[in-house]
Amino acid sequence: MSLSPVGAGMVAGAPHAGYANMVGPYGGVTAAQMLQAVWLQSDRLGEPLSLTVNFCAAVADAPFTIHAEAVVTNRSTQHWMVVMRQSDKVVSTATVVCAVRRPTWADDEVRAPDVPAPEQTPVSLWEIGRAFVDRYEWRVIEGGPAAQLGQTSDHSRTSLWLRDAPARAIDYASLTSMADGFFPRIYLRRGVPGVAGTMSMTVHFHASAQDLAEQGSDYVLARAQGQAFRNGYFDHHAHLWGRHGKLLATTSQVVYFKD
Amino acid sequence: MSLSPVGAGMVAGAPHAGYANMVGPYGGVTAAQMLQAVWLQSDRLGEPLSLTVNFCAAVADAPFTIHAEAVVTNRSTQHWMVVMRQSDKVVSTATVVCAVRRPTWADDEVRAPDVPAPEQTPVSLWEIGRAFVDRYEWRVIEGGPAAQLGQTSDHSRTSLWLRDAPARAIDYASLTSMADGFFPRIYLRRGVPGVAGTMSMTVHFHASAQDLAEQGSDYVLARAQGQAFRNGYFDHHAHLWGRHGKLLATTSQVVYFKD
Repeated sequence: MSLSPVGAGMVAGAPHAGYANMVGPYGGVTAAQMLQAVWLQSDRLGEPLSLTVNFCAAVADAPFTIHAEAVVTNRSTQHWMVVMRQSDKVVSTATVVCAVRRPTWADDEVRAPDVPAPEQTPVSLWEIGRAFVDRYEWRVIEGGPAAQLGQTSDHSRTSLWLRDAPARAIDYASLTSMADGFFPRIYLRRGVPGVAGTMSMTVHFHASAQDLAEQGSDYVLARAQGQAFRNGYFDHHAHLWGRHGKLLATTSQVVYFKD
Repeated sequence: MSLSPVGAGMVAGAPHAGYANMVGPYGGVTAAQMLQAVWLQSDRLGEPLSLTVNFCAAVADAPFTIHAEAVVTNRSTQHWMVVMRQSDKVVSTATVVCAVRRPTWADDEVRAPDVPAPEQTPVSLWEIGRAFVDRYEWRVIEGGPAAQLGQTSDHSRTSLWLRDAPARAIDYASLTSMADGFFPRIYLRRGVPGVAGTMSMTVHFHASAQDLAEQGSDYVLARAQGQAFRNGYFDHHAHLWGRHGKLLATTSQVVYFKD
């Protein structure tokens, strides 16, 4: 991540070559950096509850700054506006809601599917020449990208076990990055990899800091499915659970595609 | 809606008594006003694609201004940051993505459930003393608020037909408002109406302007379900379809609750 404070509400960094995608860095890492810019602020209240990141322009392989401003602080919630710039040009915007968590009645209504354990799921090797792929251990249960190449499908569901490579304890930034760990759903439907890019991504965090400590470096079960594809855009909705079915986060994103 | 331009990127308005909720206006109308502030700008490109609204503070029954700034304009997409203020105090923030739509391969992957037609579904009368309720015609298919009072439930799914009252042609603002047309899911799970309030709401628009013209003043089928409830917050995910199953929008929100 390597973000350095450079003043009140301001951090500086640069894309890491290890997380490079086809054009610019993997979007999940940009999203994680936007969240982390808030996480690092001394006046942050509580823990992340919600994040929306808008990918406004391609992030160049060059230094950036992120400005995070707490626009409203209440007793137990706090609202942030976040802007990433390169050479004074806005490349990403975000809003973050932080909140103080306190114990209440609890239930995970959307249950994790019954799937084989990560140890029973073979590692998926994707040699597509994009550096960020090697920063994760992918164990695809259904709907991998290679399985569908050349054939169309009537659904775009992917389920997989995922963790950082090398394995390391999860935090809000790495959970955010994992929430973008789904190749474009249009590939599955159409059977061909085409041009596609995330426009906007939202994450709702259910995991408390204690939930993340319990998750540690264990695998995350991630499942995504497309909702509608029309007029050059689609969206998908996804869930991320811990090994024993605790819902860590939910996430949606809207994606541009060319057909 | 009654928003008046008061300068470049700025509109002024006030909450409408007809959309009052328990404290302040119904959140769906605030969300609609944030979107409409962008819609009214002369330099807007294309149509709404994505909206995230953060409810930072209670909106008072007093005038407000909304400032909408196009921070990045690309060839076919545009990114907006939007802030609502009352007496210089921020009460709501939003980001909006607009996009030029063009015909592509299309499919609605999340299909509308098989439910009775609106004409076969009785009108639900909710006499809870909140003005906004009367601004809609609600025809609940399953999971109405009254049905569950006094008894807990193992799920929080609501399906209903919804339209403006009196009926009028839908637009992006009214679709946005309908996307908030679900009472807190925690009521269904716990069987008691308690304190709850939306923190952040995201809408992905699948409907083009032409899709909305075809929808006209017909009923919208809306279905929502909670995902996880923990530590004083829950989120739900929802879909809004036209009568014949065209997905008009998807939406998620994270909600504060007291138990």
